[in-house]
Amino acid sequence: MPKFEKIEYKPIPVRALLLEMKNISELMIDLAYSAALFNDKELAEDVIELEERTDTLAYLLDIEIMIAARDAKDAESLIGVSTVAAAADKISDAAADIAAIVTRNIGIHPIIGEIFEKVEERLMKVTVNEGSVIAGKRIEDLDLAARMGVDIIAIRRNKDWILDPQDDERVFRGDTLITRGAPMGIKEFKDLAEGKLRELEE
Amino acid sequence: MPKFEKIEYKPIPVRALLLEMKNISELMIDLAYSAALFNDKELAEDVIELEERTDTLAYLLDIEIMIAARDAKDAESLIGVSTVAAAADKISDAAADIAAIVTRNIGIHPIIGEIFEKVEERLMKVTVNEGSVIAGKRIEDLDLAARMGVDIIAIRRNKDWILDPQDDERVFRGDTLITRGAPMGIKEFKDLAEGKLRELEE
Repeated sequence: MPKFEKIEYKPIPVRALLLEMKNISELMIDLAYSAALFNDKELAEDVIELEERTDTLAYLLDIEIMIAARDAKDAESLIGVSTVAAAADKISDAAADIAAIVTRNIGIHPIIGEIFEKVEERLMKVTVNEGSVIAGKRIEDLDLAARMGVDIIAIRRNKDWILDPQDDERVFRGDTLITRGAPMGIKEFKDLAEGKLRELEE
Repeated sequence: MPKFEKIEYKPIPVRALLLEMKNISELMIDLAYSAALFNDKELAEDVIELEERTDTLAYLLDIEIMIAARDAKDAESLIGVSTVAAAADKISDAAADIAAIVTRNIGIHPIIGEIFEKVEERLMKVTVNEGSVIAGKRIEDLDLAARMGVDIIAIRRNKDWILDPQDDERVFRGDTLITRGAPMGIKEFKDLAEGKLRELEE
């Protein structure tokens, strides 16, 4: 998104905006830690892009809240909502700060690695290749949790993010999946998504 | 901690300070969401207290970093560390903002409840009563994950917090435990800790 671009207003329910802000901010923390741990520039750039998305959501939410508040009583009851939105925005800023260590080549001090390494479950970014057995399948049909202890926490499709995808969501060729799981499981899943492993066909 | 109290300096390794800041900030987010979801004032006050702890840690870390940096090269390599610390501080501020909605009686707008309710796994604060079968036991001996799908994510003992306790840590009478798990499991664990259920004796 170029800077200073006018954000077009379209009405979106406050609930949806706030939920997306909360989900994005949490995903960003995970992604930022992983980006720092693996010195992964691409992941760090995703975090910084998500930060822009959060800013847009915060802007839209502010407008919705102002429209919703007709009198002092409304406004009072909405203060909590705007506080939570501001908190999600702060969290996403913090994640972007961590990501910037990677994109700006500040260098990952060994201490940072040690701190984030304690995270036992790892995140991995996986792209679904043409010919992968998972392409076109519903998440529930993949049965990832039981098979390999892997969870898809976000899907990047073209320029969009699908956060915390539902079980009936399908994954498509070209999707980038953010997965969480034990190192062995996510390695296996990566091979499946990239078409190196064709186990699900049996 | 009274305001403006002078923080006494004692050398603590940067690694330990940063790890504690990171762990506290993550715990605070979980606690703040739970405090808002259940309108739990006590939990919200814990969050605000932890925020003060994070500020102290940030102060001590700044001193350690300044002492560690002897020249420009050292300083450059430590910038990443101070960025991560500042990020943890921002996250803890955000959590404290959410907690303040509860302590200041701003009122939990239904939207906030809906947003945080999506968290399937719940946090619960449990105090170990005299006579509970778990008092004096090691966490590993309780075998909570397998028995009831419960995880102890923090222990509050007197004025201290033990974050992410190790398996060989014991729980004592009077400890307050922050547990995470499915609603059924944590209810069962609460009954055990409060001495209503004596199942572990079998």
